Amino acid sequence: MSRSTDVRGLIPVLATPFHPDGSLDLDSLRRLADFSIGHGVAGLAVFGFASEGFTLTAAERRQILAVVTEAAGPDRPVVAGISATGTRDAVEQSLAAAEAGASVGMVIPPFMVKPSPSQIVDFYGTVAAEGGLSVMVQDAPGSTGVNIPVPLILELSKLAGVDSVKVETQPTAPKVGAVADAAPDGFRVLSGQNALFVLEEYARGAVGTMPASEFPDLLGAVLALVDEGDHGAARAAFNRLLPLIRFGLQPGIAWSIHKHVLHRRGVIASTTVRPPATDADPGTLAALDLVLSDLGI
Amino acid sequence: MSRSTDVRGLIPVLATPFHPDGSLDLDSLRRLADFSIGHGVAGLAVFGFASEGFTLTAAERRQILAVVTEAAGPDRPVVAGISATGTRDAVEQSLAAAEAGASVGMVIPPFMVKPSPSQIVDFYGTVAAEGGLSVMVQDAPGSTGVNIPVPLILELSKLAGVDSVKVETQPTAPKVGAVADAAPDGFRVLSGQNALFVLEEYARGAVGTMPASEFPDLLGAVLALVDEGDHGAARAAFNRLLPLIRFGLQPGIAWSIHKHVLHRRGVIASTTVRPPATDADPGTLAALDLVLSDLGI
Amino acid sequence: MSRSTDVRGLIPVLATPFHPDGSLDLDSLRRLADFSIGHGVAGLAVFGFASEGFTLTAAERRQILAVVTEAAGPDRPVVAGISATGTRDAVEQSLAAAEAGASVGMVIPPFMVKPSPSQIVDFYGTVAAEGGLSVMVQDAPGSTGVNIPVPLILELSKLAGVDSVKVETQPTAPKVGAVADAAPDGFRVLSGQNALFVLEEYARGAVGTMPASEFPDLLGAVLALVDEGDHGAARAAFNRLLPLIRFGLQPGIAWSIHKHVLHRRGVIASTTVRPPATDADPGTLAALDLVLSDLGI
Amino acid sequence: MSRSTDVRGLIPVLATPFHPDGSLDLDSLRRLADFSIGHGVAGLAVFGFASEGFTLTAAERRQILAVVTEAAGPDRPVVAGISATGTRDAVEQSLAAAEAGASVGMVIPPFMVKPSPSQIVDFYGTVAAEGGLSVMVQDAPGSTGVNIPVPLILELSKLAGVDSVKVETQPTAPKVGAVADAAPDGFRVLSGQNALFVLEEYARGAVGTMPASEFPDLLGAVLALVDEGDHGAARAAFNRLLPLIRFGLQPGIAWSIHKHVLHRRGVIASTTVRPPATDADPGTLAALDLVLSDLGI
Repeated sequence: MSRSTDVRGLIPVLATPFHPDGSLDLDSLRRLADFSIGHGVAGLAVFGFASEGFTLTAAERRQILAVVTEAAGPDRPVVAGISATGTRDAVEQSLAAAEAGASVGMVIPPFMVKPSPSQIVDFYGTVAAEGGLSVMVQDAPGSTGVNIPVPLILELSKLAGVDSVKVETQPTAPKVGAVADAAPDGFRVLSGQNALFVLEEYARGAVGTMPASEFPDLLGAVLALVDEGDHGAARAAFNRLLPLIRFGLQPGIAWSIHKHVLHRRGVIASTTVRPPATDADPGTLAALDLVLSDLGI
Repeated sequence: MSRSTDVRGLIPVLATPFHPDGSLDLDSLRRLADFSIGHGVAGLAVFGFASEGFTLTAAERRQILAVVTEAAGPDRPVVAGISATGTRDAVEQSLAAAEAGASVGMVIPPFMVKPSPSQIVDFYGTVAAEGGLSVMVQDAPGSTGVNIPVPLILELSKLAGVDSVKVETQPTAPKVGAVADAAPDGFRVLSGQNALFVLEEYARGAVGTMPASEFPDLLGAVLALVDEGDHGAARAAFNRLLPLIRFGLQPGIAWSIHKHVLHRRGVIASTTVRPPATDADPGTLAALDLVLSDLGI
Repeated sequence: MSRSTDVRGLIPVLATPFHPDGSLDLDSLRRLADFSIGHGVAGLAVFGFASEGFTLTAAERRQILAVVTEAAGPDRPVVAGISATGTRDAVEQSLAAAEAGASVGMVIPPFMVKPSPSQIVDFYGTVAAEGGLSVMVQDAPGSTGVNIPVPLILELSKLAGVDSVKVETQPTAPKVGAVADAAPDGFRVLSGQNALFVLEEYARGAVGTMPASEFPDLLGAVLALVDEGDHGAARAAFNRLLPLIRFGLQPGIAWSIHKHVLHRRGVIASTTVRPPATDADPGTLAALDLVLSDLGI
Repeated sequence: MSRSTDVRGLIPVLATPFHPDGSLDLDSLRRLADFSIGHGVAGLAVFGFASEGFTLTAAERRQILAVVTEAAGPDRPVVAGISATGTRDAVEQSLAAAEAGASVGMVIPPFMVKPSPSQIVDFYGTVAAEGGLSVMVQDAPGSTGVNIPVPLILELSKLAGVDSVKVETQPTAPKVGAVADAAPDGFRVLSGQNALFVLEEYARGAVGTMPASEFPDLLGAVLALVDEGDHGAARAAFNRLLPLIRFGLQPGIAWSIHKHVLHRRGVIASTTVRPPATDADPGTLAALDLVLSDLGI
């Protein structure tokens, strides 16, 4: 298989477009994937928190991966979120994602009954050994209620097949730095949290970021400036984007925000979200319009 | 279909036996189901919290229901735990359980992203309408992080197909009473929490209880005394069982306790649990032996 | 000063009696202290969770200690709960308790902003060094949201002036055992949780227990049997008490239960609790009466 | 008494400066108060979350209010944070703050044992009636674990002496709008969260904001543009400040960030924080310097 597992750079977590009746809108998904690729992203991620992954069925996941892996082309990494309350289901989800063409599993720890540190090690070791995907540890205690402190991430980083971590514990940049400084060569540290501290994370050793999917062009431009070493210009470009980044971090309505931006940008057909996601109210959308207007999008 | 949905009386939440390698032990499961039926239980429940339901795959759930529905005979209610992070997955789990012969779904609300009260109403309404099972609301905030206060349970009780509630919010007996006093006729209130307050709950209007599966004989005898109106003898029999009930409520090791008792009683072959459940340590098991010895089992 | 800091045996956490208008009832408090001493307890504790300590003002704490230290006599340990959101306030509370005659501080970690492990060490070290009391670490994550794992308790046990721990993390007995096996000689491990697992905790190395205050006679008899080595009789006596122990562990109404029992036993004048404690409802009290009747009290 | 209780406009929550040994630095506090007043703030707040209020003793609170009320002059509102685990202590804290010259109490609900909705009503009613301060409800579930939904805030808004609310539940702007639309005339809705959505909150009816204290000049300029009706310029000025706002919202290190900015700006002498606050690490401070440099401060 030729699909890369080398997660680096901008890898948006794609929104999952729905028709107004709540069913999957695969045409919009294809447009969203193409929109992302067209703006030069390094890979595509699905079934993340920003994808309303928690609302999807197994059959829907297969359909989504069929569309997204094709759009990604044969090489770019495709990251599938794996969220399970037990090891075996995590392995099954991984195997299904691998069969459907994903190359990397972004894996949260069991989040109903909270695992002990040694159980976390066993869990990731098993999923990496048996799941058929390169494993990215998703460190997102705000969503899972499970803390994975730096020493435990470092222990995980030594497991065969555990190749990367997405750090989402706030404050993110110091934790990115602590892991990046001590992890084995080749272990990749990425960030999330809708890129709220992406420049600080890159400065501390992050090699990639996985925000929501509505601004790959604008964030891509920021990261290009970082690559060029023009940090002042990067900050200026980032700061311009920050009002919108902030909008997509609001609990409960973040999913609606992602979709309203994508809809306004002509990428997806409907802003429908599935509960427990909530529609943004008209006042919020009016404020969002001002933010978008300032950005010229 | 003739299988009853009338959940009343003692309906144990069956442990899920595993072989030492962690795979399903269906022979032990069949013995456990027969052991329960042989002691006169009113129905059988699977995929509950006490079943390590959070560790099971979809394929395993089908296998389990095949065994359990057969053991339950054609009439007794079979209750399947439904735990999903979104509505569609809950409906799919319900449909799968219905197809495999279950008659009742014991349904927790979405537990990753927390739903609002109106979303909870929509969720249960949809699962009841589309899932093919009689719906029991499982009110277990200690596991789900979602509160369902009395007025909201009463609102749910008016939904077509939402026929019962299992109250596990502590203190349980007052909440049982508040719901039983105000719910529509025919809406059934049951209790859980390993029967820790079962007599108080029955006194307040509970019509059934769903504890773990290791003592159907002992608890059945208690409930028989209640039915006979001999409340003093019922309390004496309950009090004798209480030291063991207490053992099965210990966080993290409760599953191991359930299985060690079943193993000592000759019902299941192995005490293996799946993580994040934890094995009880030798000191705990030595203490458990004293409790069992006092009970003569 | 002659008051002992040697916390061992039964040290009840005294309820704080209030008049019906919510003001302190020091006469009832004196009767409760005398009732406890009269039943041979080893020491007295105040301002614990079971004391509604979270509702008391600094002035009330002084008044309470004046009564309780006198009732305790010159020698028995008097344990004062110390609950603060910062180090300096914890030190001040300790100094005030020491000045008022307490000998031991039962100290929870800062519970609003959660401290890191090294901050927990610094906190206890400072409180022990500057607070004027022998320090007991109160390990009660259910109330504080702060976990203190076994290795961290062992690190705390080496600090000068940190002399004991009250283990209330469930399951308690294994944690009691793990600490007792590894802590320095002379470091004392006690238990709480209303004595729900007191025999198992003693078997694992606990040297004392700190339940609520309504049954010192009944629990004292259990512990006397343990001391005599008659473990079967101890279990029988414990099991007889267990229905009542269970009643006093119900969230929200536990305080009301403690006081209703003490009131029925003629010890305190009023069952008034302060919010956020809640009065037990009539149905609960009717059930409690049956439990007390079975106990002959 | 002439001090206003009319909380409107920019009311910074003052950092509490400490000497390197952790003791209060009242000279720096005076400079910080003067710095704020000099930049035209409408009032001053102390003992908030941003003040490390959870680390302060009663004596320190008195000293702080002496300095701050003098700096505020005779008229401007002085807001004192009131955080207690019970009603009586909240009343005592209020009375002490009133005696020391504060006019408004920013009051969180009891946060150890969580109160019921009716207990929340009783709590605020009592504190308003007996505490001697105009009461502002602080709706900060992220810190307290207590939710106060819109209908409950509206119920509180009808209590005598409960005159305002500070909304800090995310997303803040819709909740600000829902309360502002339905609350009685004269009930004031303010916002917090370091002004992250201040423009959106003002658009929905907020009449004031209470961020941390390091940028009164920059945020004051934003609000002046809002007053002038120049919303485009206001957004531009806000967006320029946003990178810094974001820095001061990082859990654990926010307090250190506030103080480092104030120190760099020459306002306070030391960046010392008290645990459980944590010092920002050098990498974070290097990134902060870039943000400040972009702002020209």
